[in-house]
Amino acid sequence: MRLYSYFRSSASYRVRIALALKGIGFEYAAVHLVRNEQMSEAFGALAPSQLVPALVVGAGEDELVLTQSLAIIEYLEETQPEPPLLPKDAIGRARVRALALDVACEIHPIDNLRVLRFLVREMGVSEDDKNRWYRHWVESGLEVLERQLAGNASTGRFCHGDAPGLADCVLVPQIFNAQRMDCRLDHVPTVMRIFGNCMAEPAFSTTQPSACPDAT
Amino acid sequence: MRLYSYFRSSASYRVRIALALKGIGFEYAAVHLVRNEQMSEAFGALAPSQLVPALVVGAGEDELVLTQSLAIIEYLEETQPEPPLLPKDAIGRARVRALALDVACEIHPIDNLRVLRFLVREMGVSEDDKNRWYRHWVESGLEVLERQLAGNASTGRFCHGDAPGLADCVLVPQIFNAQRMDCRLDHVPTVMRIFGNCMAEPAFSTTQPSACPDAT
Repeated sequence: MRLYSYFRSSASYRVRIALALKGIGFEYAAVHLVRNEQMSEAFGALAPSQLVPALVVGAGEDELVLTQSLAIIEYLEETQPEPPLLPKDAIGRARVRALALDVACEIHPIDNLRVLRFLVREMGVSEDDKNRWYRHWVESGLEVLERQLAGNASTGRFCHGDAPGLADCVLVPQIFNAQRMDCRLDHVPTVMRIFGNCMAEPAFSTTQPSACPDAT
Repeated sequence: MRLYSYFRSSASYRVRIALALKGIGFEYAAVHLVRNEQMSEAFGALAPSQLVPALVVGAGEDELVLTQSLAIIEYLEETQPEPPLLPKDAIGRARVRALALDVACEIHPIDNLRVLRFLVREMGVSEDDKNRWYRHWVESGLEVLERQLAGNASTGRFCHGDAPGLADCVLVPQIFNAQRMDCRLDHVPTVMRIFGNCMAEPAFSTTQPSACPDAT
């Protein structure tokens, strides 16, 4: 497998964690987002969405490119089920997927690099207001997550029970972004407790942005 | 089952289509987003994320609330597999999920009502610029989808093959939004061909916004 990734891309980090949790080795192919390498023709031919991560599976004529981090992780779960990243019961699976989507749909897309660029360059928003925008969606979005986690008996050492899973793969990269942008985090103690438990696991720490081959 | 929905919420419409495709009857509970009914204490107690859709499953003490449209549809797929909304093969499933996420993560969240409100009220963006923002993400996002659909042999009458599935459940509501906001659509002929095929199916037409009990 070959993973097209950027060290600071949180969607890429989600997949790096999932691969590590499942013990799947892969080749790291760096795509520098700030230098717009994802917009190159070569990368576009591979991934028409021109977004990282992209995971190349198979070989030769059977080589195929998978995109969208959550779809990639579901694929890994289906093809290499152990250790599981989703619970066995349908209700538990729905809960974990919803927690993951609470980050992947409600926080992350609004603070994506291309969205922030458009906000400044096309909407004429100041740097200060851009940062306020960023923090607003992270802080309010994590507060929603805190309420879902703190008030639910299924929450354990991790988002769901005592083993890391899909929701943790999505939560941890969002906290890295939050810390880098100086977001408030003291209002989400359950989220931060789980984050701490995750970072004690090699699958999360060895794949973090600063540990990537393209980290600067 | 009871579905908390708003007629114009495209995430709610996704679930309405999936329920209809699977022939699952449900009680319709209207939550008026423009009147901020989703922010009420009563709704917050039910769905801490204060977002529609929310699907109540089970009864009495076993009653549970599921949130996030894609997690809800995966739950329906797991508990009532026929007719399937995902292909049988892992690669096909990854493709369909990625297409759904190309809309659900890359287009829809950026043009959500609460994001547009924040853009105008907090960022001081004009109505004209807000509309330009809206169209930019829809038109560029659908172009990405067009490239993925037009260039792939798995695309059929619908996004994947000749039966409607998860990706169609997500695509169609986005086109409704695009049309309501006068977005350009002549650059995405494959998308629009699939949209036409979907709207010829009762599961898509009978659940459309104007057919909802709370439509105005």
